[in-house]
Amino acid sequence: MAASPSAPAPPNPNAPAPDVPERVHLPRTSESDALKRIRHTFSHVMAMAVQELFPKAQVTIGPWIENGFYYDFDHPESFTEKDLKAIKKQMIKIINKGLPVVREEVSREEAKQRIEALGEPYKLEILEDLEDPITIYHLGEDWWDLCAGPHMGTTKELNPKAFELESVAGAYWRGDENRAQLQRIYGTAWETPEQLAEYQRRREEAKRRDHRKLGKELGLFVFSDAVGPGLPLWTPKGTILRSTLETFLQQEQIKRGYLPVVTPHIGRVELFKLSGHWQKYQDDLFPMMGESEAEGFVLKAMNCPFHVQIYKSQLRSYRELPYRLAEFGTVYRYEQSGELGGLTRVRGFTQDDAHLFITPEQLDDEFIKVVDLIQSTLRALQLDQSFRARLSFRDPESDKYIGSDDAWQKSQNAIRRAVETLGMEHFEGIGEAAFYGPKLDFIVRDALDREWQLGTVQVDYTLPERFDLEYVAEDGSRQRPVMIHRAPFGSLERLIGILIEQYAGDFPLWLAPEQVRLLPITEEQVGFAQQVAELLLQKQVRVVIDTSGERLKKMIRNAEKAKIPVMAVIGAKEAEANTLSMRTRQSGELGAIAVPEVISRLEQAISTQGDF
Amino acid sequence: MAASPSAPAPPNPNAPAPDVPERVHLPRTSESDALKRIRHTFSHVMAMAVQELFPKAQVTIGPWIENGFYYDFDHPESFTEKDLKAIKKQMIKIINKGLPVVREEVSREEAKQRIEALGEPYKLEILEDLEDPITIYHLGEDWWDLCAGPHMGTTKELNPKAFELESVAGAYWRGDENRAQLQRIYGTAWETPEQLAEYQRRREEAKRRDHRKLGKELGLFVFSDAVGPGLPLWTPKGTILRSTLETFLQQEQIKRGYLPVVTPHIGRVELFKLSGHWQKYQDDLFPMMGESEAEGFVLKAMNCPFHVQIYKSQLRSYRELPYRLAEFGTVYRYEQSGELGGLTRVRGFTQDDAHLFITPEQLDDEFIKVVDLIQSTLRALQLDQSFRARLSFRDPESDKYIGSDDAWQKSQNAIRRAVETLGMEHFEGIGEAAFYGPKLDFIVRDALDREWQLGTVQVDYTLPERFDLEYVAEDGSRQRPVMIHRAPFGSLERLIGILIEQYAGDFPLWLAPEQVRLLPITEEQVGFAQQVAELLLQKQVRVVIDTSGERLKKMIRNAEKAKIPVMAVIGAKEAEANTLSMRTRQSGELGAIAVPEVISRLEQAISTQGDF
Repeated sequence: MAASPSAPAPPNPNAPAPDVPERVHLPRTSESDALKRIRHTFSHVMAMAVQELFPKAQVTIGPWIENGFYYDFDHPESFTEKDLKAIKKQMIKIINKGLPVVREEVSREEAKQRIEALGEPYKLEILEDLEDPITIYHLGEDWWDLCAGPHMGTTKELNPKAFELESVAGAYWRGDENRAQLQRIYGTAWETPEQLAEYQRRREEAKRRDHRKLGKELGLFVFSDAVGPGLPLWTPKGTILRSTLETFLQQEQIKRGYLPVVTPHIGRVELFKLSGHWQKYQDDLFPMMGESEAEGFVLKAMNCPFHVQIYKSQLRSYRELPYRLAEFGTVYRYEQSGELGGLTRVRGFTQDDAHLFITPEQLDDEFIKVVDLIQSTLRALQLDQSFRARLSFRDPESDKYIGSDDAWQKSQNAIRRAVETLGMEHFEGIGEAAFYGPKLDFIVRDALDREWQLGTVQVDYTLPERFDLEYVAEDGSRQRPVMIHRAPFGSLERLIGILIEQYAGDFPLWLAPEQVRLLPITEEQVGFAQQVAELLLQKQVRVVIDTSGERLKKMIRNAEKAKIPVMAVIGAKEAEANTLSMRTRQSGELGAIAVPEVISRLEQAISTQGDF
Repeated sequence: MAASPSAPAPPNPNAPAPDVPERVHLPRTSESDALKRIRHTFSHVMAMAVQELFPKAQVTIGPWIENGFYYDFDHPESFTEKDLKAIKKQMIKIINKGLPVVREEVSREEAKQRIEALGEPYKLEILEDLEDPITIYHLGEDWWDLCAGPHMGTTKELNPKAFELESVAGAYWRGDENRAQLQRIYGTAWETPEQLAEYQRRREEAKRRDHRKLGKELGLFVFSDAVGPGLPLWTPKGTILRSTLETFLQQEQIKRGYLPVVTPHIGRVELFKLSGHWQKYQDDLFPMMGESEAEGFVLKAMNCPFHVQIYKSQLRSYRELPYRLAEFGTVYRYEQSGELGGLTRVRGFTQDDAHLFITPEQLDDEFIKVVDLIQSTLRALQLDQSFRARLSFRDPESDKYIGSDDAWQKSQNAIRRAVETLGMEHFEGIGEAAFYGPKLDFIVRDALDREWQLGTVQVDYTLPERFDLEYVAEDGSRQRPVMIHRAPFGSLERLIGILIEQYAGDFPLWLAPEQVRLLPITEEQVGFAQQVAELLLQKQVRVVIDTSGERLKKMIRNAEKAKIPVMAVIGAKEAEANTLSMRTRQSGELGAIAVPEVISRLEQAISTQGDF
């Protein structure tokens, strides 16, 4: 049975403190208007500096963005690293001059004349798209650009120590590859030097933790041109990660009455027409196999229509409900190849999917149980410290949804009731619903303060209608069940990508592909090490003996580099006394511990997702 | 480490005796020329009887087949059950007359004249296709047919108690649906009445055990029109069977140094061109996804090209070999829909696949270890009592293979050496090789004496060549590895189909989806039953409490019907004494046993694939 949601499981005392730095807060543009104005003004200052230094440069557009700003320039020579330094220096000069930033409203004719006087054809094109009133922002006397603002009052209000020019990239005018190629200079800008430093620290840290880099170094997955982009191949170590996560969730689910099933990866087009995916979702599906829709097959992009077929394979009684079908189902979505990167955006991924077929009366209770499961999953992964719940509702203006207004109302109300009952922090995301029903999405903030969407729960009155699902109620009448779709991890691939970065490859003991490394100091201790390894293997502990014959220091360094959480040094003394000199990545040397105690502590730590 | 093949694991003393009847031997036509002659003569006797009773009937063809014979007739009215009885009676009369069966060689012209005299146009068409010499077989004075023979000398040699007419089916003349529709009467015929009885017993038993029927009754899998033919959906109970088999083999493989991996279900056409499957195997693949081969994807029909990509993802050293990649990989093959039936012929199935990358020197040793693994797998499944090994070699006349003569020679020799070293019963199957290399196939005989192909081992010098695989040898040189492809189960789907029939749905304890059913006699014992269930669940025993409130007799009957291997009856006395009154399907009542003993005996039996 699920733990009662009103009495959540106590936090695991063995779980390590999450690696969330309590440092400088980095404001988001959504929180801070000042930040937008600062960045906007920085972009103008940069454009002015560029045109002062490079009189041939023409300016196009220059918005603020998350973390900074950019401006696109048309300039015959490429900007170099050295140019960026010069531009920065010039910008500081402009800032220090304390030029006023002045808004001026002008007539369209007036604007046109001024632009023609400057000889900047891009601005003319921009002007054509602008609505009245046309506004211009001046920096001092000598520089201006078309701009809707807002800006700071004077360049003096910018902190010359709170910005940095980052990079130059190519960009087409208006994003059209048939038009002029421009040069985009990116900058980052903040309210204070401390914020800039924190931003730069995080950026470096993100590079260090990049799961594509770490995935390769730790040998977790590979890609292959011949197999295709966005289709990871899981190597032996990565497969351990996957199966450990699957087994963990599988066991949690079995305790909660879920029933594992296995369904095919393809189905007839007919099936997806019945579900509505063919009509609403076709662009995200891989191309059909076969010549006609009547005979064609499609690679599945979701498991629900298959689980519905199992539900429908016999007449169900209310006694069987909730009927909870779970599958680690690999699905395929035809993402554009330009959008693929590492594990966070892939074309093939495994959903930790389940579909609950319930009576309408069971909805609130089951929904809360599902949320409880997701919360305990996040806890085990140390991702529970900082998440927000998004109520992903439909956009009432859009026609991309299926199902009746009444069904949408009921589903959205059920979700709202659940988060209120649980007292969860939440916000509404209008237009974020699935096409067949609203969702509750778990947005997790990672160690670098980045947000990721993980688990999801959806309430669905629509598919039961489309597939004409029924159950025999207690009074003998035929009734329509409700469905809950849910995936605590979301996608195994994406989750592992996030976990690699969250842990910086330093997996907690229970997840580590290699959990323990035995380091026999000399050849003579290898026999004893083998005996210990045998005992550990019997307890399903993933252990490796270092038989390299290297010196102890080198063996320890190699184990640290491979991020093995637990090491056991074995010398003559240890072999004699049946002990192991233990070391962990987290706590360093722990001294000699008797073998049976090591084994039982390891077993305990692994089964509770804790540390040694 | 693998157990040494020269010292096979001792037979499991707990394993139940396999359900192979030691009854009448049923000869195959391949073993007995007499049987062919008997059946051939029976078919003529049937044709004569039909023409005596139904003078309008024209005969066409009438061969012997495995288990019996048939004859195709052109006759305006449909033959009824009653007609079959009359025909059988007439056949017995003919047999009892002791008509001589006489061969006559005639000229083509003579044959034509005689047929025209009879007025049988089908025979004329048959005559056109015959090669000289034209032979006729007479039954007595009044009946003859074109026939190459051979036959018995006289109808007296047929045993009138050793045949039966079985059914009437439609058949087109020459199998061409645009030509006349004929009626085919099937009969079964044997040397002795005992053989007939045994054949009929097995046929009834096969019906009773039919995995399609039992699969439905026991709720193991379903098919869905909307998903498509040949694509089973595994229900919760069937999924337990699958995962129990997978876990069993996975553990055996991990002990033997295999490394699990996970690879995508699709790959670019390019990948299968590299492997040669696209050129040699395209008809068996599902249609391509996409418009051009350059950009197209294909559903995988085999896992090897994917495992090769993992091998190739970094430079390997001889120290890493044997490198054994294992995957329960679901593959898809585009079988004709007319050929699909239940689980034994499907379009999507899960291979218990592995690919071993080895040095040429490791071949003999690794091959023998693989055979040892397959043998211990068959042992656990109680399928080891009766199997034959087929050396599936290439047909030297055919051009459907790839790879050099030298590579084929080496591979075939390695297989031959292995079976000889192991002293296995074997035979050669020329033309049964995969297109890229020879195989050793395990042909298993089931409880009904039917043969099924299960596990397979293949030696492959060709794919390493095509993919340009290498390893760094001890001397620093680059060398080409050899590959072994192997699958002890072959296909999980097919295996489960066979096991359902082999066990007649009575799964051994370790495989049974529901292992133990607790039967509390009254409501008052439900609490105690729940405590016992909790203890069993902790030990991963699959237990269900019967809370129907039915009377004990009915509960036992229901459990028997559901083929639950172990039952525990709980009355007031048992609850008081912390015991359970045990019953098994196999041994009936076992009396009261203390709860802790029940638990430890169950654990022991399950982990050793034995009985309670």
